[in-house]
Amino acid sequence: MEKKSKRFQKGMEIIREYEDKSENPAYSITFEALMDLDEDLEDYIVEFAFGDIYSRSGLTHEEKTLMTISSLVTQGLEPQLRLHVNTGLTVGIPPKKIVDAIIHLLPYTGFPRVLNALNIAKDVFKNRGVEVGK
Amino acid sequence: MEKKSKRFQKGMEIIREYEDKSENPAYSITFEALMDLDEDLEDYIVEFAFGDIYSRSGLTHEEKTLMTISSLVTQGLEPQLRLHVNTGLTVGIPPKKIVDAIIHLLPYTGFPRVLNALNIAKDVFKNRGVEVGK
Amino acid sequence: MEKKSKRFQKGMEIIREYEDKSENPAYSITFEALMDLDEDLEDYIVEFAFGDIYSRSGLTHEEKTLMTISSLVTQGLEPQLRLHVNTGLTVGIPPKKIVDAIIHLLPYTGFPRVLNALNIAKDVFKNRGVEVGK
Amino acid sequence: MEKKSKRFQKGMEIIREYEDKSENPAYSITFEALMDLDEDLEDYIVEFAFGDIYSRSGLTHEEKTLMTISSLVTQGLEPQLRLHVNTGLTVGIPPKKIVDAIIHLLPYTGFPRVLNALNIAKDVFKNRGVEVGK
Amino acid sequence: MEKKSKRFQKGMEIIREYEDKSENPAYSITFEALMDLDEDLEDYIVEFAFGDIYSRSGLTHEEKTLMTISSLVTQGLEPQLRLHVNTGLTVGIPPKKIVDAIIHLLPYTGFPRVLNALNIAKDVFKNRGVEVGK
Amino acid sequence: MEKKSKRFQKGMEIIREYEDKSENPAYSITFEALMDLDEDLEDYIVEFAFGDIYSRSGLTHEEKTLMTISSLVTQGLEPQLRLHVNTGLTVGIPPKKIVDAIIHLLPYTGFPRVLNALNIAKDVFKNRGVEVGK
Repeated sequence: MEKKSKRFQKGMEIIREYEDKSENPAYSITFEALMDLDEDLEDYIVEFAFGDIYSRSGLTHEEKTLMTISSLVTQGLEPQLRLHVNTGLTVGIPPKKIVDAIIHLLPYTGFPRVLNALNIAKDVFKNRGVEVGK
Repeated sequence: MEKKSKRFQKGMEIIREYEDKSENPAYSITFEALMDLDEDLEDYIVEFAFGDIYSRSGLTHEEKTLMTISSLVTQGLEPQLRLHVNTGLTVGIPPKKIVDAIIHLLPYTGFPRVLNALNIAKDVFKNRGVEVGK
Repeated sequence: MEKKSKRFQKGMEIIREYEDKSENPAYSITFEALMDLDEDLEDYIVEFAFGDIYSRSGLTHEEKTLMTISSLVTQGLEPQLRLHVNTGLTVGIPPKKIVDAIIHLLPYTGFPRVLNALNIAKDVFKNRGVEVGK
Repeated sequence: MEKKSKRFQKGMEIIREYEDKSENPAYSITFEALMDLDEDLEDYIVEFAFGDIYSRSGLTHEEKTLMTISSLVTQGLEPQLRLHVNTGLTVGIPPKKIVDAIIHLLPYTGFPRVLNALNIAKDVFKNRGVEVGK
Repeated sequence: MEKKSKRFQKGMEIIREYEDKSENPAYSITFEALMDLDEDLEDYIVEFAFGDIYSRSGLTHEEKTLMTISSLVTQGLEPQLRLHVNTGLTVGIPPKKIVDAIIHLLPYTGFPRVLNALNIAKDVFKNRGVEVGK
Repeated sequence: MEKKSKRFQKGMEIIREYEDKSENPAYSITFEALMDLDEDLEDYIVEFAFGDIYSRSGLTHEEKTLMTISSLVTQGLEPQLRLHVNTGLTVGIPPKKIVDAIIHLLPYTGFPRVLNALNIAKDVFKNRGVEVGK
C-alpha cells in the first residue's frame, strides 16, 4: 500500500489540529511505539480514524471530542481518556466544560466510571497547568 | 419523603423541554409503568437525573444529548437510545447530525454497536416523519 | 465422561431447590434445548455451575441469588435475569426485596440497566402472580 | 469521495467470499438498509472493515471468523453473531467447530453469554439446514 | 444549592457507618480530591448515592455491600472494589464470606474478573490485618 | 473434595503444554497466590477451565488461544492478556500472527482496546526475546 494517500494527508492535517501545543507533550497522539509491530497500523489510524471519520464535517472539533470522551468514560478506557481530555483542551474546550460533560454521564454509567474519569481529567489539567474556573 | 421538592419541580421542567411534541408520543420519557414497583423511583429519576444532572448549566441541551447518546451506543442500550434519539430531535438536533454523531463512534466502539444504533435512529426518524438531509 | 458423577448429583439437588414450583414453569432452569449441540454442556452447567459453585456453603440461597442478579443487571443479560428473578422468588426472596436490590445498583450501573431490569422483574412478578408489598 | 477505489474493490471481493451461497439468504452481509442515512457508510464498511482488515493475509478466513465470533459472543452482540456464525459456515467451518469455539469461552465470559450465543448458533444451523455432527 | 440538606445529613450518617474504623485509613470513602473540580459533586455522592440509595431500608448493610461488590467485580472496577471490600469488612462481613461472594460469580463473569477481584480482596485483607478463616 | 481427580490430572497435563518454557517464567500460569483464600479455587481452575474446557478436542491449542485472546482484548483484561499472549508463543503461534489476530479486532472493538492490547503483546515479545517477523 502506498503511503501518503490523500486520506493519509487529510488524516495528518486533522491530527495536527488536535495535537498538544502546550509545552507538555506527554499526551500527544503518538503511536510510533506500535508501528514496528505492523506496517499498516499507522495507515489504519491516520487514514480511517482521522482521514475518514474525524475529517467528517457534521460535528465541530468540540462535539467530536465530547462524543469520544463519553464513549471512553463509559468503557473505562483510561489511557485514551487521558489523551482525549488533553486534545479537548487543545481544540479549546474549557476545563470546566470537560468536567461538566463527564459529570453528565452519572445517570448513564453510575458513579465509579465518572469519578475515575474525573481523577484522570484532574491530572491532565494539572500537567497542562490549566485551572477549572467556577 | 415529601414529593414536589424544588429539585423535583426543576426536574419536571427539564423533562418537559425534552418531551416529544410530535404527534407520535411513542418515545416520551415515561416511567409510570415502573412506579408501582417502588414509590421513590420517580423521585430518583426526576430529582437526581433531571433536577440535579440535566439542570446543570455547563452544557447545552444538544451537548447533553450527544454525551448521552454516545454512552448509550457504547453500552448497546437500545430502549434508552430510542428515547434519546427522539429527545435529540425534540431539542432541535438535526437528524443528519445525530447520524454523524453515531458514526463518529466507529473508531471507539467498532462497527456493530454503531450499525445497531443507526438502525434504531432510522426507525425513530421514520416514526417521527423526519428526513435525513444531505 | 461418565454421567451421574457425584458433582452432577449434587448439582441436580441444588437445581431442584431453585426450580420454579409455581404453576407457571416458564422460567425453569432448562437447558435441554442446547444439549443436542454438545453432549458435555449439561455436565458443565450441572457439575460446575451448580455442583461446584452453587453448592458452596458460605452464602445462603438468597445471598447467592442477590450476587447473581447484580452481575446480570450490570451486564444487561436479560434472559438470565428473568430466570434468576424467578429463582429468587422460588428460594423465598420477597418481591419487594428483589426490587430493592436492583434499585441499590443505581449508583453503580446508572439508570438504564436498572430500569430495564425492573421491567423484567415486573413481568416475572406478574407471571408468577405475586405482588410487590409496600 | 470517488466510489470504487481499489480498497473498495478488494473489500467487495472479500465480502463475496464470505457471502451465504445457500438458498437461505437471510443473513447475508447487507447494509443497504443504512446507506440512505449516510453516503460514506458503505465505504467505511467495505473499504476499511473488508478492504483493509479482512484482506490482511496473516489469518485464514476460518481464523478471522473465530476471532470475530469470540469478540461478538463476549459483547453479546446478537445480530452480528447471527451473521458471522452464518459466514463461518460459508467459509467452511464445520458447525461442530463453531459450537466448540463458543463453548471454549465459558471460562472467559461465564455461562450466560455462551448459552445465549449457542441458542443463536442453533437457530442459524437450523435455517441453513446443517447438522452438528458428533 | 444549600449544603447540609436533610438528605446530605442522612447520607453522611450512612457513610460514617461504612467508614474504616481500623488503624489503616487507606481506603476510606474519600472524594475530597475531586471536590475542587465541581462544587456539587459532593452533594451528588452524599445526597443521592448515600442519602437516597444507601439509606433505603430493604437490604441490610451486608446485602447492600454484596450487591455492590458483585457489580464492581463484573465491571472490573478495581479502585472501587478495593473501597467496598474494605467497607464490607467494616460493616462486619467476614473475609471468608467476601471471598465466597466473589467466587460465586465464576459462572457469571468467567475466571479473569473473579481472580483479579480476589487479588484485590487479598491485598485489602492484608492491609487491614485480617485473616481468611477456613 | 478429593484432590487429584482424573479431571485435575487432565487439567494439569494441559497446563503444562501451555506453560512458558522460556527462561523468563514471568507469565506462567500461576495461581498459587490465591490458593490460601479458598482451598477449592485451584480445583475450579485446573478441573473446569483446563480439565473440562481446554481439554476438549474440537480446536487446536492455537485456535483455543486465539479465541481466548479475542475475548480478553474485547474485555480489556490486561493481566490475563499478558498471560495468554505468552502461552500463545509457547504453543507455537508466531508473534506476527498474534499481532494480526489482535489487529483483526479493529472493526469489532474499535482502536483503543486493540492498541492497548498491542502494547501488552509488544512487552511480552520483548520479555520473551522474540521478534515480529515481516
